[in-house]
Amino acid sequence: MPKKIRIGLVGYQFMGKAHSNAYLNVGKFFDLDAVPVMQAVCGRKRAAVKEFAGKWGWASYETDYRKLARRKDIDLIDICTPNNTHHDMVMAAVEAGKPVACEKPLAMDVAEAAEMLKAVKAAKLRHMIWFNYRRCPAIGLAKRLIDEGRIGRVFHVRAVYLQDWIVDPKFPLAWRLRKEVAGSGAHGDLNAHLIDLARYLVGEITEVVGLAKTFIKTRPVESAGGGLAGKAGRGKGKVTVDDTVLFLSRFKNGAVGSFEATRFASGRKNYNRIEINGNKGSLVFLFEKMNELQFFSRQDPEHAQGFRTILATEPVHPYMEAWWPPGHLVGYEHTFVNQARDLINGVANDKPLKPDFSDGLACQKVMDAVLESVEKKRWVKID
Amino acid sequence: MPKKIRIGLVGYQFMGKAHSNAYLNVGKFFDLDAVPVMQAVCGRKRAAVKEFAGKWGWASYETDYRKLARRKDIDLIDICTPNNTHHDMVMAAVEAGKPVACEKPLAMDVAEAAEMLKAVKAAKLRHMIWFNYRRCPAIGLAKRLIDEGRIGRVFHVRAVYLQDWIVDPKFPLAWRLRKEVAGSGAHGDLNAHLIDLARYLVGEITEVVGLAKTFIKTRPVESAGGGLAGKAGRGKGKVTVDDTVLFLSRFKNGAVGSFEATRFASGRKNYNRIEINGNKGSLVFLFEKMNELQFFSRQDPEHAQGFRTILATEPVHPYMEAWWPPGHLVGYEHTFVNQARDLINGVANDKPLKPDFSDGLACQKVMDAVLESVEKKRWVKID
Amino acid sequence: MPKKIRIGLVGYQFMGKAHSNAYLNVGKFFDLDAVPVMQAVCGRKRAAVKEFAGKWGWASYETDYRKLARRKDIDLIDICTPNNTHHDMVMAAVEAGKPVACEKPLAMDVAEAAEMLKAVKAAKLRHMIWFNYRRCPAIGLAKRLIDEGRIGRVFHVRAVYLQDWIVDPKFPLAWRLRKEVAGSGAHGDLNAHLIDLARYLVGEITEVVGLAKTFIKTRPVESAGGGLAGKAGRGKGKVTVDDTVLFLSRFKNGAVGSFEATRFASGRKNYNRIEINGNKGSLVFLFEKMNELQFFSRQDPEHAQGFRTILATEPVHPYMEAWWPPGHLVGYEHTFVNQARDLINGVANDKPLKPDFSDGLACQKVMDAVLESVEKKRWVKID
Amino acid sequence: MPKKIRIGLVGYQFMGKAHSNAYLNVGKFFDLDAVPVMQAVCGRKRAAVKEFAGKWGWASYETDYRKLARRKDIDLIDICTPNNTHHDMVMAAVEAGKPVACEKPLAMDVAEAAEMLKAVKAAKLRHMIWFNYRRCPAIGLAKRLIDEGRIGRVFHVRAVYLQDWIVDPKFPLAWRLRKEVAGSGAHGDLNAHLIDLARYLVGEITEVVGLAKTFIKTRPVESAGGGLAGKAGRGKGKVTVDDTVLFLSRFKNGAVGSFEATRFASGRKNYNRIEINGNKGSLVFLFEKMNELQFFSRQDPEHAQGFRTILATEPVHPYMEAWWPPGHLVGYEHTFVNQARDLINGVANDKPLKPDFSDGLACQKVMDAVLESVEKKRWVKID
Repeated sequence: MPKKIRIGLVGYQFMGKAHSNAYLNVGKFFDLDAVPVMQAVCGRKRAAVKEFAGKWGWASYETDYRKLARRKDIDLIDICTPNNTHHDMVMAAVEAGKPVACEKPLAMDVAEAAEMLKAVKAAKLRHMIWFNYRRCPAIGLAKRLIDEGRIGRVFHVRAVYLQDWIVDPKFPLAWRLRKEVAGSGAHGDLNAHLIDLARYLVGEITEVVGLAKTFIKTRPVESAGGGLAGKAGRGKGKVTVDDTVLFLSRFKNGAVGSFEATRFASGRKNYNRIEINGNKGSLVFLFEKMNELQFFSRQDPEHAQGFRTILATEPVHPYMEAWWPPGHLVGYEHTFVNQARDLINGVANDKPLKPDFSDGLACQKVMDAVLESVEKKRWVKID
Repeated sequence: MPKKIRIGLVGYQFMGKAHSNAYLNVGKFFDLDAVPVMQAVCGRKRAAVKEFAGKWGWASYETDYRKLARRKDIDLIDICTPNNTHHDMVMAAVEAGKPVACEKPLAMDVAEAAEMLKAVKAAKLRHMIWFNYRRCPAIGLAKRLIDEGRIGRVFHVRAVYLQDWIVDPKFPLAWRLRKEVAGSGAHGDLNAHLIDLARYLVGEITEVVGLAKTFIKTRPVESAGGGLAGKAGRGKGKVTVDDTVLFLSRFKNGAVGSFEATRFASGRKNYNRIEINGNKGSLVFLFEKMNELQFFSRQDPEHAQGFRTILATEPVHPYMEAWWPPGHLVGYEHTFVNQARDLINGVANDKPLKPDFSDGLACQKVMDAVLESVEKKRWVKID
Repeated sequence: MPKKIRIGLVGYQFMGKAHSNAYLNVGKFFDLDAVPVMQAVCGRKRAAVKEFAGKWGWASYETDYRKLARRKDIDLIDICTPNNTHHDMVMAAVEAGKPVACEKPLAMDVAEAAEMLKAVKAAKLRHMIWFNYRRCPAIGLAKRLIDEGRIGRVFHVRAVYLQDWIVDPKFPLAWRLRKEVAGSGAHGDLNAHLIDLARYLVGEITEVVGLAKTFIKTRPVESAGGGLAGKAGRGKGKVTVDDTVLFLSRFKNGAVGSFEATRFASGRKNYNRIEINGNKGSLVFLFEKMNELQFFSRQDPEHAQGFRTILATEPVHPYMEAWWPPGHLVGYEHTFVNQARDLINGVANDKPLKPDFSDGLACQKVMDAVLESVEKKRWVKID
Repeated sequence: MPKKIRIGLVGYQFMGKAHSNAYLNVGKFFDLDAVPVMQAVCGRKRAAVKEFAGKWGWASYETDYRKLARRKDIDLIDICTPNNTHHDMVMAAVEAGKPVACEKPLAMDVAEAAEMLKAVKAAKLRHMIWFNYRRCPAIGLAKRLIDEGRIGRVFHVRAVYLQDWIVDPKFPLAWRLRKEVAGSGAHGDLNAHLIDLARYLVGEITEVVGLAKTFIKTRPVESAGGGLAGKAGRGKGKVTVDDTVLFLSRFKNGAVGSFEATRFASGRKNYNRIEINGNKGSLVFLFEKMNELQFFSRQDPEHAQGFRTILATEPVHPYMEAWWPPGHLVGYEHTFVNQARDLINGVANDKPLKPDFSDGLACQKVMDAVLESVEKKRWVKID
């Protein structure tokens, strides 16, 4: 009889939906080493979490994450709540001796992240961070091409994550725009992904200098129900996070990079793009065309060189054997299903999970260094 | 207590997986007017169908579709088996008084299709055909733009469905390459989709002339287990379907069209592309970039006209409110989930389903006329 | 002292400008085997041709092409007048014993074309037809890749030439819309190019079936001065050529093809596109991106296959060494300059010119067969 | 009788060819207010400059630019020599009282540039700098769309100029890689263009922080003849310019920007790309597709928004009425021909030329500030 892994999920908003979908479907497409069981979901608002549990098929629900962590029938804690809660929830899981998965960014700052990593290590618990873009088949392919030496010595990393959902000044002061909850704005939300991809594909960043800007400084206060339109009488509140953060970087291996995250790029919806140029070739990934990877090889015949668009939907591409035939696209949610496979199998076999909290910490160090450089108006080194 | 619709699915291969996935997920993303219940799945091979039922959560299984159709606890029959079985299965569903959904192409020929349509009409049963591409959000958007008059009088339809999975002569003689099972090759498999899209978006086809070709005439016989490699001793068999069918057409509204289906276009994986040119604008859809729709408008300022790429992932686009935020792509399987929503809601409310068997028949008439034109080497009119 | 080739150009409209530009510039970029001398330009309207000669630096002008042909100081006759004049002008050149270059399509029909070919052969004169698209560096590269065996056995040719300049019903009855001058509409103007490219890259066409349509049957009569707007009092005239011609074809080597020319594809400006699929790879050329060639190779590593976009601006690409550094694009006119190089060098060394009148005749045969098939509503073979 | 402008060109390498081509052709396509006369070309090597004069039709040649400037039969001095010579040559032109056009970057540093601007102003002479990319029709269109208010308040400028011609370490130590001649590497060569485009389209830059890197520090010494391969015996020399310079910037109008110039981006040939995001729309220009402009408008219907690709080849687009019909591309050289039109007409009518030395100086200030910030490792303000 196959092993079961009984999951306790904390959070039931956007990421809660993405994770629930992953657990619901992962066993349908992949042959797993254990059966994921959707045991309990946890949230503060009883009615809402109960409804969510019913809809997605979670067997039970909780309103206290500490209680959830302690439940005997829970084998794995998965956290997908706002950033300011990650630290305490991870600590609760650690105390309960449970392996833990956590959404990105790992923490509010390096201090928190370091503590979290120390705790899971001390307790010898498996830990994972949901940098789901690593699980795009096209990104997996990029990694493979790099590991095969097809890019060679890397000179350049060029990464942007562009959105446009708050260009309208009438967009309200959502939690993602308040520092005390979100930690930062586009920086923690979007640059975190870029930094992780750059680290995954190219290596460690050693030095940064950045720029932050909040284009729209006040916004309508959100209604109690979370509605988008602030009521006339409630006035405006201050936006306390960045709208955009750009930075330049140097990598340990000699490459240089530029990064940009913004929510003010009209027409760009989820334009997470990374380009890597090496002495043997180049790669471009763009999430808005997530099934594709562009690859240029200087080793092609001289007269036949060009960026080729690889449709990463062949069985030979990472994760794709489980899905549909070639040319049948996968979408955003599949990145979570793919990562859920690795999570379930890793926990089942008690193997290291990747990326883990050390990746979360490394990412946090870069993010904090950028913010320090913004404040000090100069380059900042990362230890 | 919400109404339930208990589904009996026939077939558990590629389409069986796509439909099962649709039923599993549709209620998670959409607010439905009834609860789809995965009641029973049916297939000839007991062990295989049992395993499939277990994996996907079908409550039971059958090996005889007639028995399935007659079960009291089944409210809807859904057929996704090879083409040569559609007719008899639909008839069994009709006899049992069940609404029925069927994969495309509807039948082996016009005679069968006409009989099927007649039967469901006589029995006053709801019927649907799975032309799933109509449920791409970008296709729904195309329909909307046309209905809004943004394309105007249509001059041209240009449709190709290109694949390359049998370019290799070592690819075996699969069921899709045998006429007695598949009816036709690329024609029924791929042109059926193009014809449906053209009918949906532009209107009826009145006259055709075509060309068919089988590039590779014999192939290794498949092993008993369905493996790809013909065993040494088993030799080769004759390919009895087309590898490609092209045809020209005239539409009732005065437009002209060209169509092409092939499995021999190296590098094209699931390149289902349709372009429509009207006197006010043009549209291009390509399934390999299924989240996008290209739109050209002659009503834009003269100096600012161009094909725009609409990323059809906004809440305002068909079906997308149920899915992820803008710029977060959906994939192939979502077309089935979207169509399942319409199926469940239609059956729940006893409303007409679209597309239905009359669309299946109309499509079949065009397909048969093309084959007749190939044989007669001249234009053939469609009544 | 280098040899001189004194050119006599007939025609001074669109093509006259393109050819004049070619002769003016060819010696600046290429090292030629002879010096092209812009000796005389010929047109019926004295004032206009005189002004043209002055502007472009033609040393003299004529109003009678027969006189031009006979001039002792003319070594080469180049014809770029409307189609209905080609035959007589070529005959005049032949009588005068001059090598001759002629714009496409070569003639009004096969009979004329055959006579012209016979005449130049009998007189042992060099002859060339201006299928200038063969001189796009990217097309030259396509030819090279095919000759290197990188495409293999060709299955499919897919060619469209789409424009939209007469979608507006107020566009007047220009000479290109009158059969007695133009011979045909989009067919002779655009399909001629496609047929030539297909023949050049793939081989001979043996059988066709087509469809022709004139969407807008009457148009304002052009004013005497050639202005676009018909005067109120002058009324409308009948369009006597096709607006679009589509056809299917079979090739001698077993490939099948589809062709389409139209002036009614809103948003397509000069969308001359050809795609070729073979068992080893595929190619796509699109004139609106004329510096690029798309190439798919099944011989790339299985996980790294994709259509690559070759920017055909490297010194290793045809003609490009003469132009600018990599990434610095060339434009439409460069195709003529490139062909002028081959013309001048060919005449200088008394070597065969390519493409020549036999290509013009072969193209004409296909075009005429298409028109016959339209009339007879059935397939027509080409001898 | 039309006025003549007799041109004296200094320099006969890459830019000399581009400018000569411009003067040769400008009067053929545009109706000018004066006739450009290719009067004299000047270079240090007598034989080479003589040959160049003969090939391109310059009426005479000189080997001393001071002498050229003083010639009575010269009305305009045009300088396209390496950067370290611009200052002295401009001064010679000013002394001779001649209007002057100069290639970019204007000078070796701000001091030089300021002196040059002061001199032309004091002498009340017309002056122009060849930022030719402003003369791409697509860039002219971008400017028009911005001026029409279609982009609105600008938030972001994202500019990269990527090439790959020195990725190979065997590429020799050409003059562009030596600081004493070139001033800087990719920075002066490529960032100069980006800065000018950003200033032209968005406005002044007030603050920068940058990063410079030389990836390959020594290279083979070029042979005397300028050949690419260093001779075995001659060894290597030090590269004294940057291979790449990246910088972040703030604009006077509140926008933020990122810039990057490199010669180490494998597969990028002349990838001069600028993206601008405003609160009403966005624009993207990429020189490798120089006939296209991408435009996103938030004022399009909500369901029909997307980046549209405008093929800037319509008569309504800047300069295009003079060239070919829609869809017939222009190339790199046309930017010079277009600018030559403005130069000739400006000088003929004694009107201000744009861009001029004040643009050259403003660009130089940004460039110098970037280099200062690189050295000081902090942000630097621009006065």
